[in-house]
Amino acid sequence: MAQRPTMHDVAAAAGVSQAVVSIVLSGSYAGRASETTAQRVRDAASQLDYRPNLQAKSLKTGVAEIIGLVGDEVATAPFSGMLIKGAQDRAWQDDHMLMTIDTGGDDALEHAAIRTMLSHRVRGVIYAAMYHREVEIPAAALTTRAVCLNAKERENRVPSVTPDEVAGGYEATKVLLDAGHTRIAMINIHDVLPAGRGRREGYERALREAGIDPDPALICGGEGIQRSGFKASRHLMSLDSPPTAIFCGNDRSALGAYQALAELGLRIPEDVSIVGFDDQDLLRDFFHPPLTTVRLPFAEMGDRAAALVLDSDAPAEVHLIHCPVIHRQSVAPPKGR
Amino acid sequence: MAQRPTMHDVAAAAGVSQAVVSIVLSGSYAGRASETTAQRVRDAASQLDYRPNLQAKSLKTGVAEIIGLVGDEVATAPFSGMLIKGAQDRAWQDDHMLMTIDTGGDDALEHAAIRTMLSHRVRGVIYAAMYHREVEIPAAALTTRAVCLNAKERENRVPSVTPDEVAGGYEATKVLLDAGHTRIAMINIHDVLPAGRGRREGYERALREAGIDPDPALICGGEGIQRSGFKASRHLMSLDSPPTAIFCGNDRSALGAYQALAELGLRIPEDVSIVGFDDQDLLRDFFHPPLTTVRLPFAEMGDRAAALVLDSDAPAEVHLIHCPVIHRQSVAPPKGR
Repeated sequence: MAQRPTMHDVAAAAGVSQAVVSIVLSGSYAGRASETTAQRVRDAASQLDYRPNLQAKSLKTGVAEIIGLVGDEVATAPFSGMLIKGAQDRAWQDDHMLMTIDTGGDDALEHAAIRTMLSHRVRGVIYAAMYHREVEIPAAALTTRAVCLNAKERENRVPSVTPDEVAGGYEATKVLLDAGHTRIAMINIHDVLPAGRGRREGYERALREAGIDPDPALICGGEGIQRSGFKASRHLMSLDSPPTAIFCGNDRSALGAYQALAELGLRIPEDVSIVGFDDQDLLRDFFHPPLTTVRLPFAEMGDRAAALVLDSDAPAEVHLIHCPVIHRQSVAPPKGR
Repeated sequence: MAQRPTMHDVAAAAGVSQAVVSIVLSGSYAGRASETTAQRVRDAASQLDYRPNLQAKSLKTGVAEIIGLVGDEVATAPFSGMLIKGAQDRAWQDDHMLMTIDTGGDDALEHAAIRTMLSHRVRGVIYAAMYHREVEIPAAALTTRAVCLNAKERENRVPSVTPDEVAGGYEATKVLLDAGHTRIAMINIHDVLPAGRGRREGYERALREAGIDPDPALICGGEGIQRSGFKASRHLMSLDSPPTAIFCGNDRSALGAYQALAELGLRIPEDVSIVGFDDQDLLRDFFHPPLTTVRLPFAEMGDRAAALVLDSDAPAEVHLIHCPVIHRQSVAPPKGR
């Protein structure tokens, strides 16, 4: 399943706010949006194949069974909404309701949340993390069907659903190799986390496959924030033999790289090519030119986790979800080619 | 209650990612973050008085009663996380669990969600909207204690909690009047929505109180997006007698105003003062200089809604929550003063 378009996507495509999309698509926009605007919204929705939600088979009558989702900070992390949306769409399609409890990362509250869910006889529990990491699932959750989402269960006692960070890093680097680059730097995010570790592993694997030894001088550590990308890019471009392309471990670092290159008078992609990671919705408008990046497949991950709750025969293994490359305009062949 | 700092705020203050804040504050950062970084995070957390969550009185033992939250697109709207967080913190403090169901705006699913919650004997239901608007609460919800959040119930059958848009618009305009401005423009968002209507009413009221007749030439309509702010600002600055200050109906419009003014070679705040509205977290870094704006008090609103569910004697009226001005650096006296 490709990542489904959201109301935000429709709003962006039509150049209006989400409120207007909602008004127009609900049909009650008379006097509140012009016919021209309404048509623009409908066109965007139809072009993107936007549907407010999938149709539940029979959920519309009667009371539904519940799948519980317990998350650490899912309510406040900006990107985790799609984890919930993916799980909820799958739950609906299979005649279940998704009920979410956010625990703020507090262990005691997490236990209370799981006990409360169990007392309500949920069909199963999705245990979701705000950022990809290893977790130990609370023992109480093991008394029902449990699945880890955006997290790997340390002892593989239950199925886990995580992004395929290694393949993502590999494909990001391949985009740059395929464009003809050979001096490709990486500005990583924390490499103690599965995301940083995996993306770097994919980067090095792609280079080696292309017959290139990863050059430690071209691999910068970072903290996954704009400033790290900025500082690392300045450093990289000051090398005697600077890279012609940079794979940034996340979009925020890429934004810092864009700023550093602009200050140095270097153009993207003519002088330096950039690939990011995450495809963060809310940063998208700030990249000129638009950033080629790798999408974290949150909706697909949520979908898979809910499906695994309902498929009690599925083995307790790690289900890696593919992170697709989103081709935009920040990659070109190196100069002189 | 002031808006409580989030992990995002701590991360921003310490210049690290949320993941690092989480690692450091959980205490298990050995080998994963340097002691310097850890200290920076702890300092930021202590300066901001960040607490991962409020302590529940007795939630840590036993099974909790549930407050249900039914939202249209709360899981995916970028700013609605704090509505949920505010409600959940209040619920915890009063020994309840908050369970959220997102309906994607589909009426049939909304009914199924409410029926499902009722069958689980929730203590009450918070009916939450992604953006401030008028709603008609589903009849089924009236069989339990119901409260509308970020929405006004059309017939005042239940308590509603909404931002005080009028007072927010008034105070935003007062900031500019107090700095000495008299030609103050407004770039509004949709004025068919309570937000646009209310903010404009507050703007006009503040001007009239200062003895200034609102000048229709200085009031621009807009769609609450960057482009509207950009176009309206260009238009305003091309007037024979341009404004010396602009109140933007939301931060996204203000971002467009910043760009237009930069292109025209005008400095903020030396040449033109700007005030925004919303205080959107994710846009904050893109304002140079930092934007003086009005904060939508989502956490307080969620807190109040949960409190109203538990206080069954509270009358079915609209509870307006104050939107505080956040003073930053985009306002100065007009030139020549």
